[in-house]
Amino acid sequence: MNLPSDFKHWSSEICHILEDFLQHHLPGPHIVPQKLHEAMRFAVLDGGKRIRPLLVFAAGELVNAPREALVVIAGSIELLHAYSLVHDDLPIMDNDTLRRGKPTCHVQYGEAHALLAGDTLQSLAFQWMSEFSLHPDPLVQLSLIRQLAVAGGSRGMGGGQAIDLESTNGLMSLPELEAMHLKKTGALIRAAVLMGASCGETLPSFEYRQLSHYANALGLAFQVVDDVLDAEMDTATLGKTAGKDAAANKSTYVSIMGRVQARNFSEELLKTARESLEAFGPRRNRLESLANFIVNRRS
Amino acid sequence: MNLPSDFKHWSSEICHILEDFLQHHLPGPHIVPQKLHEAMRFAVLDGGKRIRPLLVFAAGELVNAPREALVVIAGSIELLHAYSLVHDDLPIMDNDTLRRGKPTCHVQYGEAHALLAGDTLQSLAFQWMSEFSLHPDPLVQLSLIRQLAVAGGSRGMGGGQAIDLESTNGLMSLPELEAMHLKKTGALIRAAVLMGASCGETLPSFEYRQLSHYANALGLAFQVVDDVLDAEMDTATLGKTAGKDAAANKSTYVSIMGRVQARNFSEELLKTARESLEAFGPRRNRLESLANFIVNRRS
Repeated sequence: MNLPSDFKHWSSEICHILEDFLQHHLPGPHIVPQKLHEAMRFAVLDGGKRIRPLLVFAAGELVNAPREALVVIAGSIELLHAYSLVHDDLPIMDNDTLRRGKPTCHVQYGEAHALLAGDTLQSLAFQWMSEFSLHPDPLVQLSLIRQLAVAGGSRGMGGGQAIDLESTNGLMSLPELEAMHLKKTGALIRAAVLMGASCGETLPSFEYRQLSHYANALGLAFQVVDDVLDAEMDTATLGKTAGKDAAANKSTYVSIMGRVQARNFSEELLKTARESLEAFGPRRNRLESLANFIVNRRS
Repeated sequence: MNLPSDFKHWSSEICHILEDFLQHHLPGPHIVPQKLHEAMRFAVLDGGKRIRPLLVFAAGELVNAPREALVVIAGSIELLHAYSLVHDDLPIMDNDTLRRGKPTCHVQYGEAHALLAGDTLQSLAFQWMSEFSLHPDPLVQLSLIRQLAVAGGSRGMGGGQAIDLESTNGLMSLPELEAMHLKKTGALIRAAVLMGASCGETLPSFEYRQLSHYANALGLAFQVVDDVLDAEMDTATLGKTAGKDAAANKSTYVSIMGRVQARNFSEELLKTARESLEAFGPRRNRLESLANFIVNRRS
């Protein structure tokens, strides 16, 4: 993939800042109850592409948000993302044993501890969001907390997973699939972009709307590409079980549109996302590179 | 049990206010995803003794806190309590089928939906805590959110459950048992008292300390009585499976101290709780009645 070297440098710097924050602020593995804290750290540290955190920082740059605030938001969103993966991998959900090239949390620590680790990662996200100062105006901070809670809740990520559950072995139409993914994956991606853009100077409402279009298109593109990769790649490359959508007889963009059409659709969404950024002029560079990265990734 | 008729009237009024709030602010059962929202409502509505909400209101009266704020805090704490019961009842944890005289959430809606209902009840608690105005000073509101997140997290309720898990089939000493319960049950009871007392006039620090002693003694007393009831009562009276501590070979106050000593210990804790309230003069009446109610309840 052809990404500017400046972007690579920037993204590796952000990932470093994030990892450092997570390392220091997740409860230490020697604090009681140790096994729970180990499981929490296992689920979060050293894993994933950190796409949501990168989106938080990229959007934050648009409004000159301080990095001290952005890393807290990025870390909190990553906690919610990690908890959802831990719970999603449980035998009573997707029953998956491999994630990010490692055993899943319940394989490593047992199902009960994985359940509790997910639960307490969610609590920790809201602890961080309330204990660090994120904005000079505490009312803005309260609205950031609300945004995160809604994005993770029954009308966001959690609700998307419920729709997914109910649809297994049933055929979904394209609009139904889209509605599900706007919640399941889209809600947290959207929150990452809009929360990052809310903790600095106030964005003019036109720009906020454009950013919102970008976030929606990108959230959907992320999932379309996920579906394509699940069908195209092998388990070793993905670091998680490949081909499981087809095995579970789930409706995906590939099963409904076919692989070529799904790939084309992801390109269209990328175009929409990029066009939504035009209003920002050269300030759009990071967000544009991230969109390219998300759509053209190979794992 | 001999409780002042005024207390009975007050507690039924508070329960009514709470139920009304929950009914209106839990997502309606017709909102997509319906089954998830039904499961959330099933887990929360029309159930339990509402001890934590009553503590929030009783403590709030000490500082003339507005009921509009207290009901949000009480409701949010009750959401966390309900989610912990739903997850605790899952087969991978306690595997229980009866709760509050009804089937447990996973028996009614399946394990995957129960898992998600618990997850999204937790998100909803933090949504409510951030979207309603709880105090004229938003910094106080942020600190209330933090208190709730810590109480529910890996050093509070969730951590207590992890210690409980690790101790099954192992003998605990009395101090270990106490440390576990101060987290598992105590953290949320303590949060209820101290959060209620934080959303009105500022309490003098001496009074805050006394209230904190009261909350600690009461949290422990609650659990000691729970252990005694589990050993003494039948399933029909409790509305949940009786005798399961002994069956799981868990350390309890009854298994360590014996039933009579455990009952005496609960009376001592009640005395400590009541003495801690003396500083408040006649304002202590509700909190005192609640302590009596908790220690002398029969289910």
